[in-house]
Amino acid sequence: MADTDDFDRHNKKMAKKKLARDKIMASKTGQKGLVIVHTGKGKGKSSAAFGMIFRHIAWGQACAVVQFIKGGMESGEKKLITGQFGDICQFYAMGEGFTWETQDRSRDIEMAQAAWEKAKALILDKNNKMVLLDEINIALRYDYLDIGEVVRFLSEEKPEMTHVVLTGRNAKPELLEIADLATEMELVKHPFRAGIKAQIGVEF
Amino acid sequence: MADTDDFDRHNKKMAKKKLARDKIMASKTGQKGLVIVHTGKGKGKSSAAFGMIFRHIAWGQACAVVQFIKGGMESGEKKLITGQFGDICQFYAMGEGFTWETQDRSRDIEMAQAAWEKAKALILDKNNKMVLLDEINIALRYDYLDIGEVVRFLSEEKPEMTHVVLTGRNAKPELLEIADLATEMELVKHPFRAGIKAQIGVEF
Repeated sequence: MADTDDFDRHNKKMAKKKLARDKIMASKTGQKGLVIVHTGKGKGKSSAAFGMIFRHIAWGQACAVVQFIKGGMESGEKKLITGQFGDICQFYAMGEGFTWETQDRSRDIEMAQAAWEKAKALILDKNNKMVLLDEINIALRYDYLDIGEVVRFLSEEKPEMTHVVLTGRNAKPELLEIADLATEMELVKHPFRAGIKAQIGVEF
Repeated sequence: MADTDDFDRHNKKMAKKKLARDKIMASKTGQKGLVIVHTGKGKGKSSAAFGMIFRHIAWGQACAVVQFIKGGMESGEKKLITGQFGDICQFYAMGEGFTWETQDRSRDIEMAQAAWEKAKALILDKNNKMVLLDEINIALRYDYLDIGEVVRFLSEEKPEMTHVVLTGRNAKPELLEIADLATEMELVKHPFRAGIKAQIGVEF
């Protein structure tokens, strides 16, 4: 029967694929703390980062979050982490909102610097297996933080096994240059364009 | 002083930006259940979807997950949700692994169909504010599921206020066509290329 032949062919093809894949995977034996960047205009940059934070929480691995911008808004992830997982995941909302909300550049700079000091301390604490620097790219873009200093710290001072995740649009090329893993979230379709507002559980 | 002038200019620019933004946001008043697609070769498709699931959990909104492919592997998100949030988030791992792992097309089809039946029941249950169909795009790509049937169900039978999130590479154009929100996760850099294996908290 043709159907059985098709299935058989598929199964053989998949067996071959598995062999090739297993061989590739066997060659991947290294472990290291990664510099991970989520950028682009699409949604999912922070959500995906928090997804990894929750994975760490799930496995009992200490981790930490510093929010550079979004501090003004109560978010589900903040509520859940501070409410139930504060013992394993430190959470610092250091920003007061997007820069066009605050309209005060000198205060924005002060807050970004304070957040960066906190971030460095958390990264240097080897208990933390992952540190998320949420929306730091916004602070870097407006030069509230010096990209050279951030790149230098991640390259020279970050403990070898610690993962650091940096999110936000417009990641600087210098940051992408030193990243181990970088994803560009590209906008294909966005409901704001159709008059839909930010909704609970989706955007916050 | 030039510095003060610069700061002043920045603050005025930001005030103008806020005005424009507030006006745009005020026009976004609609609420609806969204069809959300995460696709592309980059990382973060499932992580971002689970980020939204955890937001729902945080706000006490019932939700559900059906995994079409990844069932064979223990993941942090599965462990955390089934271990601590089973009362608010139903979790069904219906797949046995990627199709090249199982090498049995007829069983893959059976399992994908069973997962789809479960998915439909969860979506039709209006208690669930969000239902995540994780890696369903793989099942659609190999025609384990009929794309026409999935599109028809989401367009005609999905309750109006329910969010459905569909993840996986190679999303079919028919699905993107009916999506309200779609993000393509584009691979910029991946550590597997540098011999680094899948690591706890990052990939699973």
